[in-house]
Amino acid sequence: MSGREHFLAISGGVGGAKLALGLARVLAADQLTVVANTADDFEHLGLHIAPDLDTVMYTLAGINNSQQGWGLEGESWQMLEALQVLGGETWFRLGDRDLATHLYRSERLREGESLSAVTAELCRQLGIGQRLLPMTDDPVRTVVHTDQGELPFQHYFVREQCRPAVSDFHFQGIEQARPQRELLELLAGETLAAIIICPSNPFVSVDPVLGLPGLKQAIMDSGAPVIAVSPIVGGIAIKGPAAKMMAELGLPVTAAAVARHYTGLVNSFVLDEGDATLAPEIEDLGMNVELAPTIMKTLADREQLARRVIELAKV
Amino acid sequence: MSGREHFLAISGGVGGAKLALGLARVLAADQLTVVANTADDFEHLGLHIAPDLDTVMYTLAGINNSQQGWGLEGESWQMLEALQVLGGETWFRLGDRDLATHLYRSERLREGESLSAVTAELCRQLGIGQRLLPMTDDPVRTVVHTDQGELPFQHYFVREQCRPAVSDFHFQGIEQARPQRELLELLAGETLAAIIICPSNPFVSVDPVLGLPGLKQAIMDSGAPVIAVSPIVGGIAIKGPAAKMMAELGLPVTAAAVARHYTGLVNSFVLDEGDATLAPEIEDLGMNVELAPTIMKTLADREQLARRVIELAKV
Repeated sequence: MSGREHFLAISGGVGGAKLALGLARVLAADQLTVVANTADDFEHLGLHIAPDLDTVMYTLAGINNSQQGWGLEGESWQMLEALQVLGGETWFRLGDRDLATHLYRSERLREGESLSAVTAELCRQLGIGQRLLPMTDDPVRTVVHTDQGELPFQHYFVREQCRPAVSDFHFQGIEQARPQRELLELLAGETLAAIIICPSNPFVSVDPVLGLPGLKQAIMDSGAPVIAVSPIVGGIAIKGPAAKMMAELGLPVTAAAVARHYTGLVNSFVLDEGDATLAPEIEDLGMNVELAPTIMKTLADREQLARRVIELAKV
Repeated sequence: MSGREHFLAISGGVGGAKLALGLARVLAADQLTVVANTADDFEHLGLHIAPDLDTVMYTLAGINNSQQGWGLEGESWQMLEALQVLGGETWFRLGDRDLATHLYRSERLREGESLSAVTAELCRQLGIGQRLLPMTDDPVRTVVHTDQGELPFQHYFVREQCRPAVSDFHFQGIEQARPQRELLELLAGETLAAIIICPSNPFVSVDPVLGLPGLKQAIMDSGAPVIAVSPIVGGIAIKGPAAKMMAELGLPVTAAAVARHYTGLVNSFVLDEGDATLAPEIEDLGMNVELAPTIMKTLADREQLARRVIELAKV
C-alpha cells in the first residue's frame, strides 16, 4: 500500500477529539485530516456556534480545558455574568475567550466566507498543522425526538441537560448538504491508509457525517479500511449521553450494539480490553476485533490508542 | 410655571453623562428624561454598538469606569485578547462585560424590537429609574469629512484616534429619521421645566439630535427654556476632540464659539467661571450667561452644576 499514509478521522466533540489529538501527536501534520460533525452547530445570540468543530480545534491547538472537558483553558465568564444581570439567555455557557471564536467566525460567514475557509483561518492562527474540516459547509441541524417533543440538539443537550427521553433523531437539511469537497477528494484519491471513526456518539456525532449524501458510498469506494473505536466501555459511555440514548432507543448498552450500528461499513472494531467477552458477537458482524485500552485519561493513553489504530491500518 | 417640573437633558457620551448623573442625583427619578445621541452607533462584528447611549446608561446605573472615562468598571478583556490571537479586528475595545449589552441588544433588535424598547429593558434590568431615550429608533450615522476622506465616526474617533483633520460632517439617514416619539410627546406637553444641552461635543453629539427633522422647531415651540453648558473651558475641550475639531473648522476655540453655534435656540448659557471675559460676547448673541464651575471632577461637582442648571430654569 505504498503512498497510502494519510489518515482520516471522523470526530464529534470531546471523546473524538481525544483520539484526534493522539493521532496528531504520533503522525506527521500532513498525514492527518479530521472531519468534524457540524450538525450540533446552532445560532445563539446571533453567533454561529460550532461546538464539535471547536472542541477538536481547541484540542488540537492544546488550548482546551481538559479538566472541564469542553471549552478553553483559563476561560473566564464575565460576559455571561453581565448577561445574567441584563436578563439575557445564559443557559449556553459562552466563555469570554470562546466568544472571540464565535464573533470572528460569525463575522466571516456574514462576509460570505464558507465555514471550511473560516475554520482553516482559525486553525492557521491557532498554529494547527493538521487539516480540520467541517463535514459540510451547508447547514445541517440535529433535531432530537423526545418525550417532550422535538428539540434542537443544543436545547436537548445543554439547556435540558439530556433529561428528555430520546426516541429518534433527524438531521434537518442533510438531503441538500454537500459533503466537504476536500473530504470527497481525499476519499477519491490514493493516499488514504485508513478511515477512523473516533469514539464519538454514533447517533448524534457520527451518523450526521455518514448520512451526508453519497458519503457512505464514497467511504466504501475509497479502498481504505474503516476502523471504529467504541465510545461505550463496560456498558457506559465514556463521555456524553450515548449510553442513555441507547437505553431509551431500546438497544443493548454495549460496544457490540455500537458495532452493529456500523455493520457493512466498518472493517475493524477497537474494543476495550474489559469488554473482551463481546468480541465473538462483533466478529459475527464480519468485523475484525482489536482489543485495546480505550479509556484515554492521559496524553500517553491518547498516543498509545492512536498507535494501535494506525497499526490496524496495516493489517 | 406650576406643573413644569420635568427636565430634558440632551447628551452625548462622557461629558454629557456627567451632568446627566448630577441631574439624576438631585431630581426625583420621574423628573428626568435623558435623550442620547445615536449617530455614533455602529455595527461591529455583527453587534449593534451604541457608545453614547451606553455611556449614559452605565453612568446612570453607577457601573461606569470613571477612571478610564468610558466602559464599565471592573471590566476584563479576555475576548479581545483571544480575538487578537485569531487575527480579528481589535481596534474597537470591546470589554467582556460590555459585550453582554451588545449581544443582548443586537439579538433583541434582530427579533424586531426597537432600540428604545431595548434601551428601556436594559435600564430596567440595571435599576435605572430615569427615562433614557435614544434620539431616534431609525439609523443615523455620523460621517466625518477629513483630509483622509470621509470616515464613519468610530473609524475616525477610535481607529484613527481623531488624527485626521476635520472639514465637515454629515449625518447619514437623518432626513428619514423620526425623533423618538416620547421625546416629541414630552416637548409637546406641559411638564417641561427646561431643556438642557449637556456639555457634549456640539458637532458630533448634539447636532445629530438637533438635526432630526422637526426637532429644533419642537424645542422652540415647547415653551421651555433651553440651557446649554459649555463643553469648552479655557480654550480646551474637557473631553474628546471638540477643541481640535473647532480649530480645524476655522472656528475660535472658545466657549463663545460654542454659544454662537447654538444661536437662536439657547436662552441661557452656562460658562465656566474661568471664561468670564467671554460673557459679553455671548450676551450679545441674546443669551443669558450664567457663570459656574463647570469642570466636574467629583460627584459633588456634578450635583452642584446640576443644581445651578435647575435653578436657571426658574429664572
